[in-house]
Amino acid sequence: MARTSLSGFPEWLPDGRIVEQAVLDHLRRVFELHGFAGIETRAVETLEQLESKGETSKEVYVLERLQALKERESGARPSHERRMGLHFDLTVPFARYVIENANDLDFPFKRYQIQKVWRGERPQEGRFREFTQADIDVVGNGELPFHFEVELPLVMAEALTTLPIPPVHILVNNRKVVQGICEGVGVVDVEAALRGLDKLDKIGPQGVSEELAESGITGEQAATLLAMAEIASDSPAEIRARVAGLGVGGALLEEGLGELCDLLATAGERMPGVVIADLRIARGLDYYTGSVYETVVEGHEDLGSVCSGGRYDSLATDGKRTYPGVGLSVGVSRLVSRMLSVPLVRATRKVPTALLVAVIDEDERHRSDEVAARMRSRGIACDVSPAASKFGKQIRHADRRGIPFVWFPGAPGEPDTVKDIRTGEQVEADSLTWQPPAEDLAPRIEAIG
Amino acid sequence: MARTSLSGFPEWLPDGRIVEQAVLDHLRRVFELHGFAGIETRAVETLEQLESKGETSKEVYVLERLQALKERESGARPSHERRMGLHFDLTVPFARYVIENANDLDFPFKRYQIQKVWRGERPQEGRFREFTQADIDVVGNGELPFHFEVELPLVMAEALTTLPIPPVHILVNNRKVVQGICEGVGVVDVEAALRGLDKLDKIGPQGVSEELAESGITGEQAATLLAMAEIASDSPAEIRARVAGLGVGGALLEEGLGELCDLLATAGERMPGVVIADLRIARGLDYYTGSVYETVVEGHEDLGSVCSGGRYDSLATDGKRTYPGVGLSVGVSRLVSRMLSVPLVRATRKVPTALLVAVIDEDERHRSDEVAARMRSRGIACDVSPAASKFGKQIRHADRRGIPFVWFPGAPGEPDTVKDIRTGEQVEADSLTWQPPAEDLAPRIEAIG
Repeated sequence: MARTSLSGFPEWLPDGRIVEQAVLDHLRRVFELHGFAGIETRAVETLEQLESKGETSKEVYVLERLQALKERESGARPSHERRMGLHFDLTVPFARYVIENANDLDFPFKRYQIQKVWRGERPQEGRFREFTQADIDVVGNGELPFHFEVELPLVMAEALTTLPIPPVHILVNNRKVVQGICEGVGVVDVEAALRGLDKLDKIGPQGVSEELAESGITGEQAATLLAMAEIASDSPAEIRARVAGLGVGGALLEEGLGELCDLLATAGERMPGVVIADLRIARGLDYYTGSVYETVVEGHEDLGSVCSGGRYDSLATDGKRTYPGVGLSVGVSRLVSRMLSVPLVRATRKVPTALLVAVIDEDERHRSDEVAARMRSRGIACDVSPAASKFGKQIRHADRRGIPFVWFPGAPGEPDTVKDIRTGEQVEADSLTWQPPAEDLAPRIEAIG
Repeated sequence: MARTSLSGFPEWLPDGRIVEQAVLDHLRRVFELHGFAGIETRAVETLEQLESKGETSKEVYVLERLQALKERESGARPSHERRMGLHFDLTVPFARYVIENANDLDFPFKRYQIQKVWRGERPQEGRFREFTQADIDVVGNGELPFHFEVELPLVMAEALTTLPIPPVHILVNNRKVVQGICEGVGVVDVEAALRGLDKLDKIGPQGVSEELAESGITGEQAATLLAMAEIASDSPAEIRARVAGLGVGGALLEEGLGELCDLLATAGERMPGVVIADLRIARGLDYYTGSVYETVVEGHEDLGSVCSGGRYDSLATDGKRTYPGVGLSVGVSRLVSRMLSVPLVRATRKVPTALLVAVIDEDERHRSDEVAARMRSRGIACDVSPAASKFGKQIRHADRRGIPFVWFPGAPGEPDTVKDIRTGEQVEADSLTWQPPAEDLAPRIEAIG
């Protein structure tokens, strides 16, 4: 299903695009039901802006005008145009947008943003160089209440659990819990602890211990951190009990544990079984300041997280004001690519068209056009046969595309008829009133198996 | 309304984005009603592909990975990665997509494509370096009937005349008419004639005559071409009569005139007054092979054409097969930018939200969340107040965003109430059944003045 004549740049055939579009429409619909306003930012940022978040700067695609490139290669003086690159996520551009438009935005500002992003990675299995992300964030001016850290993952839970994919689990952790436990056992270099724990799946507990030892973390401290990483549950009581079992305490740990358990409790009431606290999650804890989120699809754990995010105490700052934020980002291309390649779903047809109007004779094309215009005025997506060929050929035109109905204008004095080409049933019909069944009006996506 | 902290890269505030999104949704809706399937192509093409259409290659943005750039600048050997650039239109990528996927597509293939494109032009008034285009094309395998040259501009006419903008006129011409007249008067260098005529608005008839003389076109020949360029009408009869008055003939001219008048006749029946033949139009005639189209908005002629296109006998070819096509492209950003800057329209609010649910007390937030969940389950976009502040402040939160209704959960034993903050009317309401008026369900765009 994926066409990639340039490695890492996926394209879909029309039926694949119907699936992707349905996913995008669904996400937008859920985001808007929750009051998020849609924005788009330009695809490019200044290199300065992109490099402000050091970690991924190596993956940036830098732009140069072809004309400037040719001048440079012919030995001319290098251009002094400001260097721009393609954005590699939607968070950096959003932070810039908030600063630039702060006086015109209403805070707390809830926005969704669905756009392509680019990363100049060496192409490899499942890594795209161009892909679509769908982000929601809420950003406050100076302050942002904790309850948004509960609400935003629940918006994503609603969006993802209503897609035709296997069950999803949103795994949550909290920076304050991990930092609180580190401080409780006397680990000063929290970042080193996080880096080590992040490798747990790859190198195992023994490997992590050795790695932590290099940063001066003792075996005893490492044992507590590894015990912490074993803690996972959707029950606030169990989380509290198991953290208590680690035998460490402190104000920061208590604060984080309160937040984590609040999140679990509310999620458990509203969407039982979806949100799970997992204290092994370390990725992102180095830049998020409160809750962090990752999302796995049951049976597709190899995909990695399809929806991640967290809380920043300073999403953006202009020196005077600070804008805390919390948000999550769905990796739409990664998810859709899997939905199409397994496949988990299929589109009921390849075109929006519900009805093909046959043409009896090229001189009578205007009659078919009139039928089509009437259908469209009533919201029925409609096509007219490209040629007045034999009816069998016109029916095959519909069949190949999955168009369910073919309309035959009647000979003069005779009524029109419409044929359901799936059942072969053909009945007289009036073009002023005929309606296809609601489920045939637009292509749908169906779960397979 | 336009924010452009990088010159040529427009961004909209949330209410501007509502207008843009409404325009995009409308275009998509009309295209789908006419049976066009949506596709997207990657943003990048190989430089080879982009340069195959020489004319605009100077405007291409070339990509380079930041890592590769740094290596190059530190004196390392230049990378041998294949050079890629951002697409500058949607036609070149579509032609490539058709060739690559020919075996999986059903011809004639009708597709729409709504995406950003980039041109590295020096920024100037009204020229964007990043902008959105909305294209429709139909492409055949080997052949493509003429009737599509009539239908496609009528799809665009339907799409554009139902937007809240002043009346639009689609100006049409036909390569065969112009070439037929050139040949009829003995002009051999048709391209030179087209280049000259294209400057008519800028340099006037005298200037054009002088320019044509440089290509060996005589004063008498030039006079006929200039007389041709004066011909404009929506009446097929008038077009025929005035072309006859030029005193030239020939089979190609007759064929082209037949096509042009067919188009006018059908357009005149279906959408009177929208499509006008204008034989002055020369732009695009050098690469289109049949009908050409441009579109002007009344009172906004300075915008230039907001929707252009034409017929190609060879949209794409793989050496063995040739794919003729006809299509048009709407310059969405140019149009939306004008709609917002005049302004021609406004969004009825800045957010999707129809209802804000007030919070009485932070301890009672869950009650407000429950009301919101019920509303959303019935398709009502809904937000919950970010803080349990005084009701006046919560109402101001709604008012600033244009949210029309605020819901107040009742004290225990008391009914809930809902207030229309535009009228001040507050009534008892049941969260299981309350509905806002249909016109308040989603933000709309309204014509101004």
